[in-house]
Amino acid sequence: MRYGYFDDKTREYVITRPDTPLPWFNYLGCEEYFGLISHTAGGYSFYKDARLRRLIRYRYNNAPMDIGGRYIYLRDKATGTYWSPTWMPVRRQLDTFTCRHGIGTTTIASTFVGISAEVLYFVPMGQNLEIWRLRVKNLRDTPANLMSFASVEFCLWDANDDATNFQRNYNVGEVEVLDNVIYHKTEYRERRNHFAYFTSSAPMKAFDTQRENFLGVFNGWDSPQAVAKGACSNSIAHGWAPVGVIQSELILAPGEEREVIFLLGYMENPNEEKFEDQAKQVINKSRALPLIKQFTQAGEVQSALENLHHYWDALFSRFQVTTPDEHANRMINIWNAYQCMVTFNMSRSASGFETGIGRGMGFRDSTQDLFGFVHMVPERARQRLLDIAATQLETGGAYHQYQPLTKRGNDAVGSNFNDDPLWLILSVCAYIKETGDRGVLDELVSYDSKPGSEQPLYEHLQRAIQYILERTGPHGLPLIGRADWNDCLNLNCFSSEPGESFQTTTGKDGKVAESVFIGGMLVLAAHEMAELADYLGNKKDVDFYNKVAADMEPIVTSHGWDGEWFRRAYDDYGNPVGSATCKEGQIFIEPQGMCVMAGIGLKDGKAEKALQSVEKRLATEHGIVVNNPGYTQYYLHLGEISSYPPGYKENGSVFCHTNPWIMISETKLGHGDKAFDYYKRICPSVREAISEVHRTEPYVYAQTIAGKEAPTKGEAKNSWLTGTAAWNFVAITQYILGIRPTFTGLSVQPVFPESWKEVTASRLFRDVKYDIHIQRVGPGNAVETFVEGRKIETPVIPLPPPGTACVKVEVKVGSPK
Amino acid sequence: MRYGYFDDKTREYVITRPDTPLPWFNYLGCEEYFGLISHTAGGYSFYKDARLRRLIRYRYNNAPMDIGGRYIYLRDKATGTYWSPTWMPVRRQLDTFTCRHGIGTTTIASTFVGISAEVLYFVPMGQNLEIWRLRVKNLRDTPANLMSFASVEFCLWDANDDATNFQRNYNVGEVEVLDNVIYHKTEYRERRNHFAYFTSSAPMKAFDTQRENFLGVFNGWDSPQAVAKGACSNSIAHGWAPVGVIQSELILAPGEEREVIFLLGYMENPNEEKFEDQAKQVINKSRALPLIKQFTQAGEVQSALENLHHYWDALFSRFQVTTPDEHANRMINIWNAYQCMVTFNMSRSASGFETGIGRGMGFRDSTQDLFGFVHMVPERARQRLLDIAATQLETGGAYHQYQPLTKRGNDAVGSNFNDDPLWLILSVCAYIKETGDRGVLDELVSYDSKPGSEQPLYEHLQRAIQYILERTGPHGLPLIGRADWNDCLNLNCFSSEPGESFQTTTGKDGKVAESVFIGGMLVLAAHEMAELADYLGNKKDVDFYNKVAADMEPIVTSHGWDGEWFRRAYDDYGNPVGSATCKEGQIFIEPQGMCVMAGIGLKDGKAEKALQSVEKRLATEHGIVVNNPGYTQYYLHLGEISSYPPGYKENGSVFCHTNPWIMISETKLGHGDKAFDYYKRICPSVREAISEVHRTEPYVYAQTIAGKEAPTKGEAKNSWLTGTAAWNFVAITQYILGIRPTFTGLSVQPVFPESWKEVTASRLFRDVKYDIHIQRVGPGNAVETFVEGRKIETPVIPLPPPGTACVKVEVKVGSPK
Repeated sequence: MRYGYFDDKTREYVITRPDTPLPWFNYLGCEEYFGLISHTAGGYSFYKDARLRRLIRYRYNNAPMDIGGRYIYLRDKATGTYWSPTWMPVRRQLDTFTCRHGIGTTTIASTFVGISAEVLYFVPMGQNLEIWRLRVKNLRDTPANLMSFASVEFCLWDANDDATNFQRNYNVGEVEVLDNVIYHKTEYRERRNHFAYFTSSAPMKAFDTQRENFLGVFNGWDSPQAVAKGACSNSIAHGWAPVGVIQSELILAPGEEREVIFLLGYMENPNEEKFEDQAKQVINKSRALPLIKQFTQAGEVQSALENLHHYWDALFSRFQVTTPDEHANRMINIWNAYQCMVTFNMSRSASGFETGIGRGMGFRDSTQDLFGFVHMVPERARQRLLDIAATQLETGGAYHQYQPLTKRGNDAVGSNFNDDPLWLILSVCAYIKETGDRGVLDELVSYDSKPGSEQPLYEHLQRAIQYILERTGPHGLPLIGRADWNDCLNLNCFSSEPGESFQTTTGKDGKVAESVFIGGMLVLAAHEMAELADYLGNKKDVDFYNKVAADMEPIVTSHGWDGEWFRRAYDDYGNPVGSATCKEGQIFIEPQGMCVMAGIGLKDGKAEKALQSVEKRLATEHGIVVNNPGYTQYYLHLGEISSYPPGYKENGSVFCHTNPWIMISETKLGHGDKAFDYYKRICPSVREAISEVHRTEPYVYAQTIAGKEAPTKGEAKNSWLTGTAAWNFVAITQYILGIRPTFTGLSVQPVFPESWKEVTASRLFRDVKYDIHIQRVGPGNAVETFVEGRKIETPVIPLPPPGTACVKVEVKVGSPK
Repeated sequence: MRYGYFDDKTREYVITRPDTPLPWFNYLGCEEYFGLISHTAGGYSFYKDARLRRLIRYRYNNAPMDIGGRYIYLRDKATGTYWSPTWMPVRRQLDTFTCRHGIGTTTIASTFVGISAEVLYFVPMGQNLEIWRLRVKNLRDTPANLMSFASVEFCLWDANDDATNFQRNYNVGEVEVLDNVIYHKTEYRERRNHFAYFTSSAPMKAFDTQRENFLGVFNGWDSPQAVAKGACSNSIAHGWAPVGVIQSELILAPGEEREVIFLLGYMENPNEEKFEDQAKQVINKSRALPLIKQFTQAGEVQSALENLHHYWDALFSRFQVTTPDEHANRMINIWNAYQCMVTFNMSRSASGFETGIGRGMGFRDSTQDLFGFVHMVPERARQRLLDIAATQLETGGAYHQYQPLTKRGNDAVGSNFNDDPLWLILSVCAYIKETGDRGVLDELVSYDSKPGSEQPLYEHLQRAIQYILERTGPHGLPLIGRADWNDCLNLNCFSSEPGESFQTTTGKDGKVAESVFIGGMLVLAAHEMAELADYLGNKKDVDFYNKVAADMEPIVTSHGWDGEWFRRAYDDYGNPVGSATCKEGQIFIEPQGMCVMAGIGLKDGKAEKALQSVEKRLATEHGIVVNNPGYTQYYLHLGEISSYPPGYKENGSVFCHTNPWIMISETKLGHGDKAFDYYKRICPSVREAISEVHRTEPYVYAQTIAGKEAPTKGEAKNSWLTGTAAWNFVAITQYILGIRPTFTGLSVQPVFPESWKEVTASRLFRDVKYDIHIQRVGPGNAVETFVEGRKIETPVIPLPPPGTACVKVEVKVGSPK
């Protein structure tokens, strides 16, 4: 069943009842000020870093699950009845309810007791503040005497400390209240130079800044005592839990509508200008006041909203398609692109499932995320790549994570996830294919963030390959290290201590356990390097990397081949993992996808066979599971993968990230129908129809969907921040639609369903707009390509002369019968 | 105002209304299974370690503040009305309410709609389980058809991970339900060998183990959907949030009472016997079933309850007093002793303010706590001392914290809190004075937990002194290091980064900043060492330590003296801290107390003058503040102390721990009235009368009470786990009552109020019961002592011949006019 619908025109998902299977989130902000917001206004905000500069307090996994956020209460003076137009936290049965989650905006509207109310939430471009625009209309034929209470619970900045260090925290909370503004200034007296402010366009009738004065010690956000009695107490927080609550009057004639703007902002002062009055510790508000003045005006808010829409229009317009499938259109044109940008902004830090206090950015995560956003923000992608590369180690290896603020590798997690460095190659190549910016390879980039160690980026890529070549095992396959792409396949861990990290514990010397997956990936990365070297005109390197691939390929097809599929790995005892000879975990998805993507087995039928095995053993109606049979018990020599009950997470769920690898592989075999079939199985927009089963948001991908062995099969978890976003965007756009950047130009070579007759696309590529019209003229995937009406011999469209604004491309697919 | 009353007969505090100023907590368990419980049944339980083996999930600083715990719901079938007999979480207005917090027991009772219900919570001795005994009585004259729902939300064992790692945690939850028992077995499949069980003496009508099935996704514990509709759904948790909910029928005739026992337990299995059925991963329940059988029987529960009472009777009976002051009696005989035992069990780990996830035990904390419990559990105190000493460093310095499970020093916090090692001396001496066990000094104890480094404990004490002697500054005073007793006076920190730890950041070489406090403490500790050496007959050491004291004393009285009081320290610039020459922080309490306790200035009037300054500058009706004037802004060279707003925590609050030092000092000057006056100002039982101001529990000490500069002056915070418990017990019993263990025997030398005519005490000391009768015969503090009717010449009662069971002591106080 559905809990709403897609409004593709406004680029919104419209939730039409508040009791969705889980809280459904959206994001606010796309520069330095960010927020999460659920469909009932739960969530929080932060400046740059979700751990260290959090503005709103939020408690994860609470009961109810999503409580705390940006709540407005309305109270009818005549009856004392109060409610939230966002349903939560009061949860009064409303007459109507809609939440429109849009691109950087969320609008929640409802009607109750003859009052309609709508709250729009967004972050203006270029500002470190968020706007809540409340519109209340009196639908009655009598006047309405209402009171509004807008509320926020302040986080004491460091979200982890805020949730754990009460001996200190209950003593440090401080606020100022002046001229209709509540300033949250905890720790401003000491080492912080930043504060938050909360204000309104309407005059404050009263306020509260101490939580217990507003709520009462034993009441929750569902029933604040101040709202129940209709009056805040003008409390000033001294320690405990500072909040900002603004009480205003709303007296409305019949039919009258009023707009009230609330503003929550973050402000930094130069250290030498922190105070207006140092002796009294009064903060200097001179930088905040102009913004407060500006953004409490309706016209300014409206134009900020329009600016935000223009920003996203510009990003999305770089790639728009029309296919016969509404789901694909919606995902490519709106939601998948949006999710890719959110992964760019958030990495894996803050979502409904990620608390924002695990601070590292993944080396592997971020390099893959780039595939999905590089066409929208190529300049920012370039910087991201250079940041990541600077944390690479001199060995060619990589820190598994790095800290976004310091841009340094994270010692706590360390290195030796042996696939990590290869992702840098794929990512740099994706960037150059998109932009043609080969100059990036000459950028001098440090190792391990050490000054003086700088080498050209190209050298970094070379060392990545070298790192793998120097670490091979008994079968000649790459050693797996702590883990490869599957963080939970820990073949050197051997942990028997509860709570010990599977990722950082090492019980073996690491000289035996090998990864077929990395073997396949080396072939893929070496091909990319050879292609890149060719693009650079470096013949020696072309030969070298072709040889690297040629050397590894037979090792993969011998020791890595199980007869019907590619094996996954060899464990520390030298026994195969992911083999028919295993009792459990006989087949894994990852090596099938990676090897076929690398071109291994395309000629000798192994690829075909492997994909048939995937279909037979791993594919389900909810997507393709990661392994089968799932491990039913814990195996010391396999690690975390076997710690999950079968059907969940890395042990037999549909780990969505891997599914596009199979889609891409199917296109390599020319199977457009099969590829698109797999696409649809995990496509959020398709799964919208079974939202009660899927449960997470129907507009974005989740990391996992419970697999066929799980009692809750089809149930998704960990939505929003997943590499699935980038990879599915690649699978559908570059392989199924076949619109693929290459070093030398845009290639159009679709492998889409037989039934599709026509696809059009508009693609900005290296500052040129490509208007692409694809028409099926018969079965099969053969293409005939016409550029500006002239046939060309390859599917790669040559770069047009400089200054060309637009190129018209006509592609005929299939062989006319 | 009061929110209840003390019932000294039953040793309970009886709360008579649920809406106390804050949640008021009690503790359950005193061996290996522990729990916190608020007066409305909030709280949680754990086995041994509050972080790593937590059974019940609890969210600190929630809204409402205290939500989640051991909740029972009752539902009247006829009307659908439901409520909690513990008020929370449903918060229905009840007809009557009482919570009796007792010694290891909490009993919450109420009546509503003609139904009385009482829940008793306790942990039986020798067991790793807790009992909830529900008694429901139908007061109506018609039959009552009720349903009960008993509920617990399981923590996934590691409380920190449980609250942060949802990507994993939402996938691993597992339970079994069999034969009326809910088993929580998350991660049992992998590296854990322990599980929890929850069961009832009544047959389960239905159950839930998935939180959202019980509550609903958008409901809280106040309104579970299953309770609202009167039926659980027999849900089995697969991931998400496992709970245990047992639904039972209670059909009661008019006047009928029924008892239902609920049992929550922790069980470990040997690794090789984890499973009943390994293939199906069915846990082996054979060790749990007999306990379940036993403790679901009313008679067994009643006798376990009586055993618990006997245990505490035995502990408390070691020291009982009758003074003319009911507050002192109540605190000494019941609540202060109880609080001391709780600090023994908990250190600073788990309270309403301490989340239980900061795992270290403080070197300084635990050595001081010992003063309060050594007479009750001397054998366990001995082991604690040896554990602590084994973490001392070879330099004589100490890790600031150590881990109770590994018993190793905590590298994250490190060393260089320069007072730390001296506390070991005071603590070991207190232990030997209590027990006469000089053999403990010969125990071989390691340094830094390193095998092979073992030396006799006596050597450890010597090195502690040596450590200080080797670290003196420009004035010859001891260097302060990271901090001394006041963790927040960080004279070498110089931190300007927000969030940086004041305790572990070091911005200076540490060679200038000195502590007068440590100077005084060195004198005290050296005196103790000399006395100990004398007791051991080691003349050389007597002379050495007397010289150490004699050398330091003039340094303290010169450079450490400000004219009217002792200075606090010298900062890194060599300027005094706690001097009339300072703009803020002119006088501090710590050096006044420590120096006078060490006997410094007793003869030349400095002690008298210092204590007068304390009274004039620091004493308030709510106790004695730590410094004055409080720092109004942050000073880089002072550190965390100046990060608190004035009047709070280390910056100008009544930091209660230090107050008994002044009480003791006043007794040294013979000021019994003054000493007892200070005692009463912070005495919880006295402050009960202003509970609306004090706010924390009226039966235990809190760490701080907001000081005179604070807007919320008189408001206490961080109750239960504070060194105040031990020190006030020492002040009142050893100095005001004057019943003080010495190396050679029990000394009785009271310095109590002039108005007190008579005090009796029963004191178990070295296996002999001392019946002490103290009578005032005139003003002043002179004593005449009679043992078994015979006058002796010193106040120290000679040890009686071996085998003596009881000694009668008569003490006449004062000089007859």
